[in-house]
Amino acid sequence: MTPYLEVHVTTDTQEEAEKICNAAVRGRVAAGAQIIGPITSIYWWKGEIQRDEEFLILMKTTKDRLDELISVVKAEHSYETPEIVAIPIEGGLVEYLTWIKVETAELPSVE
Amino acid sequence: MTPYLEVHVTTDTQEEAEKICNAAVRGRVAAGAQIIGPITSIYWWKGEIQRDEEFLILMKTTKDRLDELISVVKAEHSYETPEIVAIPIEGGLVEYLTWIKVETAELPSVE
Amino acid sequence: MTPYLEVHVTTDTQEEAEKICNAAVRGRVAAGAQIIGPITSIYWWKGEIQRDEEFLILMKTTKDRLDELISVVKAEHSYETPEIVAIPIEGGLVEYLTWIKVETAELPSVE
Repeated sequence: MTPYLEVHVTTDTQEEAEKICNAAVRGRVAAGAQIIGPITSIYWWKGEIQRDEEFLILMKTTKDRLDELISVVKAEHSYETPEIVAIPIEGGLVEYLTWIKVETAELPSVE
Repeated sequence: MTPYLEVHVTTDTQEEAEKICNAAVRGRVAAGAQIIGPITSIYWWKGEIQRDEEFLILMKTTKDRLDELISVVKAEHSYETPEIVAIPIEGGLVEYLTWIKVETAELPSVE
Repeated sequence: MTPYLEVHVTTDTQEEAEKICNAAVRGRVAAGAQIIGPITSIYWWKGEIQRDEEFLILMKTTKDRLDELISVVKAEHSYETPEIVAIPIEGGLVEYLTWIKVETAELPSVE
């Protein structure tokens, strides 16, 4: 297993998804982010099955940066308990994995 | 690694995807499910390369519930050998992971 | 953990995504491939945050075939450093996992 992660987050609009991705990438807690959607979500919430349109975000980060990435997502997210799960990366193109490390190791942009 | 999983399933229509998701969530073998699509699938089947439109389902469950979730998906699915793969979840927002445990621990809805 | 992997690749057009999927499946370095998109990508590249439309490919293979799959994707891909990451598969429907093994064990098609 490598020290890299793919983090999955869902939110309810493309706009909020872009806000979260920009905050995470600008803050160097993710090297890159992708937004898929709209998707259909079906889930239990407070005793009822809900069916909503959502957007799925995939972000690449390191294990060292995960806690900071979770903090940034929570700060930008409008949900009470947003989906934030981290999937391990077992291997891949070495130059790409190195890119994740380099981009998340730099100081955050002050722009 | 946590005791939680993201299970990926593909099927050929949005309608069948919703049927599978509703059965899994109502039966408490998944806490929530998402449907992405249409997507393009390219694969070997019986000696030929196939190209079809499909829908991708992502479901959150626990390792304890995986066998039951596979049974529910197989029962609802129209394919001979559906894609059902379980991806490990290494970490994430603690409150969200707890939600997966709580929602899959309850008795199935009798509705 | 099983000897199976889900490999994620991104590219900039549906056409290039299909070319990569066909090469990987025909070459027996992936049993099957799916294309999701268009998606939105936000990432650091050479000191700037980029925002592009992309397509996400998911491929099923074995750990034994990963290096060959990476070679095929790199050969077909137009990017300098394409995203290629391999996610572990922890379990799933046994007949489906066996299908991944069988389809990637055969000799490449000479067609």
